[in-house]
Amino acid sequence: MTDTVKINRGLKGVYFERSQISDIDGRAGSLTYRGYSIHDLATQATFEEVCYLLIHGDLPDATQLAEFDAALKAARVLPEPVFDIIRATAHGHPMDVLRTAVSALAALEPDSHDASEAGFLRNGIRLTAQVPMIIAAHEAIRNGRTPVLPDMSLSHAANWLWMLKGARPSADAERLADVDFILHAEHGSNASSFAARVTVGTEATLHGAMVTALSTLAGPAHGGAAEDVMKMVHEIGKPENAAAYVAAKRAAKEPVTGFGHRVYRAEDPRARHMREGVRKLGEEMGAPGWYAILQAVVEAMSPYARHGLNVNVDFYSGVIYQLHEIPMDLYVPIFAIGRMPGWLAQCLEQRRSNILIRPLTLYDGAAPRDWVPLAAR
Amino acid sequence: MTDTVKINRGLKGVYFERSQISDIDGRAGSLTYRGYSIHDLATQATFEEVCYLLIHGDLPDATQLAEFDAALKAARVLPEPVFDIIRATAHGHPMDVLRTAVSALAALEPDSHDASEAGFLRNGIRLTAQVPMIIAAHEAIRNGRTPVLPDMSLSHAANWLWMLKGARPSADAERLADVDFILHAEHGSNASSFAARVTVGTEATLHGAMVTALSTLAGPAHGGAAEDVMKMVHEIGKPENAAAYVAAKRAAKEPVTGFGHRVYRAEDPRARHMREGVRKLGEEMGAPGWYAILQAVVEAMSPYARHGLNVNVDFYSGVIYQLHEIPMDLYVPIFAIGRMPGWLAQCLEQRRSNILIRPLTLYDGAAPRDWVPLAAR
Repeated sequence: MTDTVKINRGLKGVYFERSQISDIDGRAGSLTYRGYSIHDLATQATFEEVCYLLIHGDLPDATQLAEFDAALKAARVLPEPVFDIIRATAHGHPMDVLRTAVSALAALEPDSHDASEAGFLRNGIRLTAQVPMIIAAHEAIRNGRTPVLPDMSLSHAANWLWMLKGARPSADAERLADVDFILHAEHGSNASSFAARVTVGTEATLHGAMVTALSTLAGPAHGGAAEDVMKMVHEIGKPENAAAYVAAKRAAKEPVTGFGHRVYRAEDPRARHMREGVRKLGEEMGAPGWYAILQAVVEAMSPYARHGLNVNVDFYSGVIYQLHEIPMDLYVPIFAIGRMPGWLAQCLEQRRSNILIRPLTLYDGAAPRDWVPLAAR
Repeated sequence: MTDTVKINRGLKGVYFERSQISDIDGRAGSLTYRGYSIHDLATQATFEEVCYLLIHGDLPDATQLAEFDAALKAARVLPEPVFDIIRATAHGHPMDVLRTAVSALAALEPDSHDASEAGFLRNGIRLTAQVPMIIAAHEAIRNGRTPVLPDMSLSHAANWLWMLKGARPSADAERLADVDFILHAEHGSNASSFAARVTVGTEATLHGAMVTALSTLAGPAHGGAAEDVMKMVHEIGKPENAAAYVAAKRAAKEPVTGFGHRVYRAEDPRARHMREGVRKLGEEMGAPGWYAILQAVVEAMSPYARHGLNVNVDFYSGVIYQLHEIPMDLYVPIFAIGRMPGWLAQCLEQRRSNILIRPLTLYDGAAPRDWVPLAAR
């Protein structure tokens, strides 16, 4: 049997489902959400519009957007025990704290076990609002500050920066966060979305699926790229060191962080929007050095672009967070804030034509053997 | 493209990896752990031996078993904040509380982010000891009692019953719990183990993978069968009602709970051991009625056995828990206690030759469309 069975390691190239949410063309380097180009969305849409689009399938009209925005704002509430849980785990990694708080919300929200379509939607919108609150509250608590209350007059992105910093963001900073969330909102059957769908496949709750997504995103090979790039930038130190750094990595056959992606052979279409953000923000803040280092790395890597080693979205995002003085261990949680509507859309889609997702492993272990009592071993 | 791509819904029949842990022959109705028949293990082994076998690949000799047992007992410790977290979520479903506590342990244990082989092993053994403690502590706290401290002189199974009930179990009760754990310890790439491997695939922590496994097991289509069977038994009420109940279900084309399994076409080989346990325990406790109802259902279902509708392992376990007066919402958590070594073995195996698990979805959503400003919608 071993000879005739095909093993699809990593399930690479295996289709497990149809999807109407996003379309990635890795060769062309294109990405659409519900038919809309990521470039239009990154330059024209708000995160709230993108949430609605991903969840409901079409852009909202003015009334629908106002209702959706009101629902998202009304959900900016955390039950008091969540703060106790954040305090009890305050010294942990922010992803561990976030996942624990989301898991706890399943026990604290009265309707978390409503696995109907409406229940998934209600719980999903609530969690989309709560996730940035949890991250900001943890950041405050671990620094000995009182969590900042949400400001209902602010957008999702502006309220996030307000809760994180305790100061109103500039219009540019708000827009940059908004674009960051839009670019991270959805990306097909990536590992975290796929894992969430496996959880939904057992008819589990939405909170359970979101916890699975957070567990999976936390892995360095999925959500950790922005942090790794920032470490690399610090290691390189100045633009003129970039060529030698890349040459050493290539000689050692080690990957250069922030380059290459499982599905893209052309440049990750999300990268250009972050690149422009880094350049502009760096100039404005009188710190153009980071951008110069990144571009020197891109230059040094250019001979390998034809092998598919183009920059991915997280090549630039770390520097943006750094310029905003956001601690490195919050980079993955920020990814999660953006990804919430994508996870919700994937869970809703899985739920609608649900099936247990259970592939096979081919056994190649010990042959059948007889039991040996302990005394005879 | 749509026409030529094969969609493997539920990944049914798709092999994603080789595995040396367990071998399931669905047609023959056989199951081995590391080459040892489930029948030998259920009748001769202890849960501690099975843990060692699954994790290390071979049965332990006396010294290895003593060391492993000592390590498992030494790990019967919960950091104090875990009790605060259980209290904060005490009114939630036990699976939500268990998952939250395991997630919190990632933030509370200093070495939870050690993703080396040794780190996975150490964290996995610790969690195997802690999971029954969390469940028992929650059961105590939600009933206004003080959690029972673990008894280091007792086996894993006996200590579980001791912590749950605050009374020493009989030798028969201990053995029945031991066999229950052994039968649930491992089962190939079931949804929870597979989801855990997807999480490990991103180089996440073992705690993260275990949280994913718990989220996924909690779904009624995976871990919920024992509870559903017990509800069915109550609905049927007495043996003579079983035939009419089954006939009505078949006429309505609804499934009869506890029958059929994605991989077994013959009888689930684990079922016979639980069947014998139910019969014996029912007689001993002067409550043979439950067993009689179950067997009447089996009798009524016998015409469908050739279609693969045989009893699965959870057909009998619910009645055992009921006879022990264990609340129904603890049935899935008990499954989790048993499955811990299987999840750990799967995570270790995935980690050793790790790869990102990322299948594809085939896009069949909206065609590319132009952005429309809000005012024009």
